Amino acid sequence: MESENNNSILPAVVEALCAADQGEIDWKKDGGRLLPSREQVIEIIEALRSVLFPGYFGISELSNSSIRFHVGATLDRVMLLFEEQIKRGLCFTCGHYIKACPECTQGAAQIIRSFLEKLPQIQNLLAGDVRAAYEGDPAAASTAETIFCYPGILAITYYRLAHELYQFKVPLIPRIITEHAHSLTGIDIHPGARIGENFFIDHGTGVVVGETCIIGKKVTLYQSVTLGAKSFPLTEEGRPLKGLDRHPVVEDRVIIYSGATILGRVVIGEGSIIGGNVWITEDVAPGSRIALSSG
Amino acid sequence: MESENNNSILPAVVEALCAADQGEIDWKKDGGRLLPSREQVIEIIEALRSVLFPGYFGISELSNSSIRFHVGATLDRVMLLFEEQIKRGLCFTCGHYIKACPECTQGAAQIIRSFLEKLPQIQNLLAGDVRAAYEGDPAAASTAETIFCYPGILAITYYRLAHELYQFKVPLIPRIITEHAHSLTGIDIHPGARIGENFFIDHGTGVVVGETCIIGKKVTLYQSVTLGAKSFPLTEEGRPLKGLDRHPVVEDRVIIYSGATILGRVVIGEGSIIGGNVWITEDVAPGSRIALSSG
Amino acid sequence: MESENNNSILPAVVEALCAADQGEIDWKKDGGRLLPSREQVIEIIEALRSVLFPGYFGISELSNSSIRFHVGATLDRVMLLFEEQIKRGLCFTCGHYIKACPECTQGAAQIIRSFLEKLPQIQNLLAGDVRAAYEGDPAAASTAETIFCYPGILAITYYRLAHELYQFKVPLIPRIITEHAHSLTGIDIHPGARIGENFFIDHGTGVVVGETCIIGKKVTLYQSVTLGAKSFPLTEEGRPLKGLDRHPVVEDRVIIYSGATILGRVVIGEGSIIGGNVWITEDVAPGSRIALSSG
Amino acid sequence: MESENNNSILPAVVEALCAADQGEIDWKKDGGRLLPSREQVIEIIEALRSVLFPGYFGISELSNSSIRFHVGATLDRVMLLFEEQIKRGLCFTCGHYIKACPECTQGAAQIIRSFLEKLPQIQNLLAGDVRAAYEGDPAAASTAETIFCYPGILAITYYRLAHELYQFKVPLIPRIITEHAHSLTGIDIHPGARIGENFFIDHGTGVVVGETCIIGKKVTLYQSVTLGAKSFPLTEEGRPLKGLDRHPVVEDRVIIYSGATILGRVVIGEGSIIGGNVWITEDVAPGSRIALSSG
Amino acid sequence: MESENNNSILPAVVEALCAADQGEIDWKKDGGRLLPSREQVIEIIEALRSVLFPGYFGISELSNSSIRFHVGATLDRVMLLFEEQIKRGLCFTCGHYIKACPECTQGAAQIIRSFLEKLPQIQNLLAGDVRAAYEGDPAAASTAETIFCYPGILAITYYRLAHELYQFKVPLIPRIITEHAHSLTGIDIHPGARIGENFFIDHGTGVVVGETCIIGKKVTLYQSVTLGAKSFPLTEEGRPLKGLDRHPVVEDRVIIYSGATILGRVVIGEGSIIGGNVWITEDVAPGSRIALSSG
Amino acid sequence: MESENNNSILPAVVEALCAADQGEIDWKKDGGRLLPSREQVIEIIEALRSVLFPGYFGISELSNSSIRFHVGATLDRVMLLFEEQIKRGLCFTCGHYIKACPECTQGAAQIIRSFLEKLPQIQNLLAGDVRAAYEGDPAAASTAETIFCYPGILAITYYRLAHELYQFKVPLIPRIITEHAHSLTGIDIHPGARIGENFFIDHGTGVVVGETCIIGKKVTLYQSVTLGAKSFPLTEEGRPLKGLDRHPVVEDRVIIYSGATILGRVVIGEGSIIGGNVWITEDVAPGSRIALSSG
Repeated sequence: MESENNNSILPAVVEALCAADQGEIDWKKDGGRLLPSREQVIEIIEALRSVLFPGYFGISELSNSSIRFHVGATLDRVMLLFEEQIKRGLCFTCGHYIKACPECTQGAAQIIRSFLEKLPQIQNLLAGDVRAAYEGDPAAASTAETIFCYPGILAITYYRLAHELYQFKVPLIPRIITEHAHSLTGIDIHPGARIGENFFIDHGTGVVVGETCIIGKKVTLYQSVTLGAKSFPLTEEGRPLKGLDRHPVVEDRVIIYSGATILGRVVIGEGSIIGGNVWITEDVAPGSRIALSSG
Repeated sequence: MESENNNSILPAVVEALCAADQGEIDWKKDGGRLLPSREQVIEIIEALRSVLFPGYFGISELSNSSIRFHVGATLDRVMLLFEEQIKRGLCFTCGHYIKACPECTQGAAQIIRSFLEKLPQIQNLLAGDVRAAYEGDPAAASTAETIFCYPGILAITYYRLAHELYQFKVPLIPRIITEHAHSLTGIDIHPGARIGENFFIDHGTGVVVGETCIIGKKVTLYQSVTLGAKSFPLTEEGRPLKGLDRHPVVEDRVIIYSGATILGRVVIGEGSIIGGNVWITEDVAPGSRIALSSG
Repeated sequence: MESENNNSILPAVVEALCAADQGEIDWKKDGGRLLPSREQVIEIIEALRSVLFPGYFGISELSNSSIRFHVGATLDRVMLLFEEQIKRGLCFTCGHYIKACPECTQGAAQIIRSFLEKLPQIQNLLAGDVRAAYEGDPAAASTAETIFCYPGILAITYYRLAHELYQFKVPLIPRIITEHAHSLTGIDIHPGARIGENFFIDHGTGVVVGETCIIGKKVTLYQSVTLGAKSFPLTEEGRPLKGLDRHPVVEDRVIIYSGATILGRVVIGEGSIIGGNVWITEDVAPGSRIALSSG
Repeated sequence: MESENNNSILPAVVEALCAADQGEIDWKKDGGRLLPSREQVIEIIEALRSVLFPGYFGISELSNSSIRFHVGATLDRVMLLFEEQIKRGLCFTCGHYIKACPECTQGAAQIIRSFLEKLPQIQNLLAGDVRAAYEGDPAAASTAETIFCYPGILAITYYRLAHELYQFKVPLIPRIITEHAHSLTGIDIHPGARIGENFFIDHGTGVVVGETCIIGKKVTLYQSVTLGAKSFPLTEEGRPLKGLDRHPVVEDRVIIYSGATILGRVVIGEGSIIGGNVWITEDVAPGSRIALSSG
Repeated sequence: MESENNNSILPAVVEALCAADQGEIDWKKDGGRLLPSREQVIEIIEALRSVLFPGYFGISELSNSSIRFHVGATLDRVMLLFEEQIKRGLCFTCGHYIKACPECTQGAAQIIRSFLEKLPQIQNLLAGDVRAAYEGDPAAASTAETIFCYPGILAITYYRLAHELYQFKVPLIPRIITEHAHSLTGIDIHPGARIGENFFIDHGTGVVVGETCIIGKKVTLYQSVTLGAKSFPLTEEGRPLKGLDRHPVVEDRVIIYSGATILGRVVIGEGSIIGGNVWITEDVAPGSRIALSSG
Repeated sequence: MESENNNSILPAVVEALCAADQGEIDWKKDGGRLLPSREQVIEIIEALRSVLFPGYFGISELSNSSIRFHVGATLDRVMLLFEEQIKRGLCFTCGHYIKACPECTQGAAQIIRSFLEKLPQIQNLLAGDVRAAYEGDPAAASTAETIFCYPGILAITYYRLAHELYQFKVPLIPRIITEHAHSLTGIDIHPGARIGENFFIDHGTGVVVGETCIIGKKVTLYQSVTLGAKSFPLTEEGRPLKGLDRHPVVEDRVIIYSGATILGRVVIGEGSIIGGNVWITEDVAPGSRIALSSG
């Protein structure tokens, strides 16, 4: 089964994989710091989802007298794990390169506390998103169906949790969270985007929402909508200049149908309806109805 | 590691998450009923897949003398779990709000029996879908490759199982099944759609097949094809009117290339070929060839 | 809970599922050979990813003195499992139909050894891909972020591993690998495609790269780009003729924006920029800039 | 690896194992009833131990603000599982032989409620046993050490839980519990025995405490002490007559050293000290000191 | 958390643990052979127990129509694993020191087939042992109780399986099996002992049954009974001479009470009763009643 | 299934279990410190056993080129976990009652380093113990058999690891280790005992070796041997005076047969043979042969 020959080259291959200068993927260049664990972050976020939607995810055998115990036990366990991961995230850019960095340890403790306090507010926002999904889709037979099944609800849940950490400037972790939602749903929302209440994405596969997007209240997107950047200036070294506002602003009550592409820092005015497959790179006045010229 | 400060706010956060009136996401408003478990439903469907394609999924060390034991043991275990989940699905809308609802218990027992009897027929349909995939894709080196790897085969397998339950009017469960397939493949088929024999979806990411679609035999779809609704009438309260026929009818032997969008209750006539990226909102005569006017 | 009635039909259903002639899905027609296990292949590839990017995936608590132990232990364990799966893949087409096929056993041992030797080179290629992602996306805050989160990096990692096995003509396994990446990212790269250094796919959902594509160095693709086949000749029996060069050649430094569709054996000349949503079925001269005529 | 020959006899062996009249081990003779699951009972009892000694077993990261959540969540989950097992235990002797026996369902609900109410009292008794262990052994450095490590504490914990169920006349389950403790510790206490406060068993391997033993307060046993039956009358059919008082009564503050054997319904009077290896089959007056005559 | 200092000595410690000449524990001295896996053997034996006592161990939700599926599936899976372990056992002494030793591969295939054929007979023997336990203990409320709980039943089950392999001269594996039973029950039966029908061990902790013991039908032992060797001749090099008959012969219907020690190749005649704690090194005539002279 | 009634008393029971003053079992009385985790300690020790006996426990597919990787990876992972547990052990008695106690953190780092350095030496001692087992038991067919199966080898392995920590004065952890061995083998060796080279315990069930025992080289014990304390002086408060030398000294080359009991600080002189079941409370001269006067 095992052929001894393979093993005789094993040490040399291991040496090559570990010792060579791997450039961009050399995690070791900075000494002792530990990287976050993607598996841990995903486990944490899934547990948080079960706490925000008790009875739907995680343990389903809940009763009025036991719900608090389960929510509390899950939350307590998960916050402990999350504090460690946030600390590792902070250490990624702190520049101290020591194992037990006191600054990041303290920072993580403060962030985790603030994050915990924000959870009920996030739950309220998500209740609004669920309502928007139920009211926006004739195929939705109940709000429970949207919570259980709709990729749009999963994506906005993960985004709202990640965005909170993004605001605390935690490196790496927010993006790990939203990219996990991307993997599960095909919906790619950057944690830096700002998204208002009662947001609904139907079907969702192929949706892209860029880092500096601003989305108002009661906005609806369908599958394959791109809210992207048109092009971006380069630095003198030819690298993309980071941190500029380069994605669309979508105002309240806008509907954007499937396959539409909106690029650059343009404003889609309040109440506009953007038809399927259209390509927009300029501002759209409030109340507009944009459609493909022909079929 | 654990900062005691966080914990001191834990009880207040738990109280807020559990006690506040959460509106749409308040599972507790109806008393004792238990919601289905998404994890359980997914585990059940994956086991059913291993039973429909023995040797390909689940235990791969099968022989002619052992295959029946493995298929039987898996099926027996899974039907028990499925009966419980179907009962929970039925209880979601039965309106009795009691734990051991005898009506739903009996209903689940009848459904599970009928479902079990249908499995060989579903297996036959899937054999036809596998043949269609192998014959429809020059890159397919064997039928086994399509069973192991093709997202289209996974999506149609999950759909055919879910559609059976949809016909028994089980709430929630069918949609959990097809949305799990959506997550794994990017192919979003509503369990209510009606799909004929020898169906093939190539690549598949971004395909949407709506609730009231009717698809004939030997139909082929490519990635990003949408068979959707154009718009939908609202009720007097401004909510979408549910249950109308609002998606396309696709007749036998139609091929629809990538990115095509077909909206509304239109008929795509037998043997038509719909080109990539076209946008259709009206009937197409049998034998038509529709393509983008230019590139 | 369990209704005895269901069970009484269980043996008949099992018999129907196992005994009937299932045509295309009958794994038993060839006697004793064992099929590969998809779960095993996926576990193996995830372990290989942890070895190519040590510290990022798998165990994150690495230090300079322990990294070799972890990489070596994982690699040793995984090569043993992989050898068995490759043997099963070879047996799928060897035509001997015996359990302990000596030819495939020997073949697998040789392939696994060569594969092992190639790993450091694959790691180098991936370092280049990571650099391309970091330099190509203004939202990327660090190379670590692209390794952890970017679906494009996951897809190219899985592709580069699968392509190596494809070159050894191992049946089934390479496609299982790339289709797993497809499931996780929405990026569908056939293992037969040939892709040069510093390749970057941004967002990625809906990208299709066909079996006979040839892609040069420093190429960038955005979401929903299709590099597909236009149509394919049929054999006399009406089946698609397999093995022809039918997908595009994309030369060095080409950028292709979201939604562009390029079909057939056409050449996209060096340094060209293909705009979003364009539809191309003919050669494009080097240095071209192709865009939709209007919006 | 797998030899096809073996499999060809598999169906015949399975038939023999299942179909033959297995007499005493034929679980099937009574129709539909389900037997308890030993694994489940053990999991339940280990969870109950973590609830009785919070912080010592199960999750160790507890704080004053989180302890109630963890204890409550564990207890809620476990009581649900226990109710099912107790129902199965009751069904074992109820004589109805139906799946959903309403009498046993109701009985289990009542028992589980009473059992739950008794837990704090059991915790109090165990606190006394811990104190006795700490005070009785010069090697015990702390009470925590006795909770973590002492087989005597484990055995008395399991016994006190099992004895509660024994008093509710639940078949099978109490003995499964104490025999699991026997397996872990070598201490064999029948759940029917009656044992007073502040009980201590040191080392413990080989201790046997019979079904009808009555043990007073502050009693200490060392390893290999047997409190057994001398002989037992047979019924007319030559089977042992069940249910007679046939084991010793050990009064308050008695110490019994290692290897002592006490057989039959004899009384060991208050405050007596029984030396190692002695053999007793008659009453011992209070305050006695019994020792081997020589060495 | 991790202190880098420790790691800096890690490579040296690993080198010392692996490279030094470890004498008796150096598994590497014989080249390529693989040792059996204790975890695997234990898992196999526990699965076999579930097959011999269906409904009691393993899956408890069995019905008349499903039992064969579960027994067959478990047995098929387990025989495959067992064949590999038996091959490793045979390779331990075959002297070929090659990975894929054809002689041991073939030997394991033959042994596994014979073993499989013996299982129904072993089940019959165990049914007799269960009957003996029920009839021999007034505390036994049902035969099910003895199957679920009695350490004596577990020990005799494991012994009867191990003894079958011992007769096939498989190295290592039989002893791994009986020593696992020893760990779980405190009952130490050597797999080489020969034990007749209807054997019962009550309580069991501390029982020792030596390698060359011969035990007749309907024999009963209580806890701490030793059937051992008196002393053993040494070889010229001062090592114990292996393979001599050096343990007692216990004839039919003998009862041996707790703590009795019987040493050497002595015969305990049919129907004798040996009292507690007695010490015997000579033959005992049939029908004898041996007891301690005084207490 | 779940009866709502039970749950309504759940909060009150939880409150009683957590809030009442539980005296000896109140882990909370000292504030923030975390207790060690028994599960973790056991997992660590089992991993250490696989490192001391590579190929026998843990991964069995080792080769000369891979053994270092597996040993190193296991050791690295385990030392990290062990450092945390040792810190918790130290914190149990440090008196600081703070979460991140710097003194205990530093202490654990030093201890773990020293412990790591001692491992090769422990391995050497165990090689001697294995040799003693093989040479001392005619039933031992190979040294491998004693490593795999003999409870005496397991017990001495765990003891030698625990004794090392005992010497570093780590609270709780050493006893957790030896009591786990006690549970698995019935052999109860206190971690404080001092035991010389080439130690062998045959069968083992019921052996007790007390805290202050001193055992020389090449000593052999059989099952149920007790090396215990005779009685112990009490403090003025009536509690046992802790820390006195109160157990036997057993000199080199002594053999003690099954059931012998030796109590108090007596010396068993070099080369003595102590017969089965004898009871000794006084010194025994070197070279003595002590046996029961009659049988």
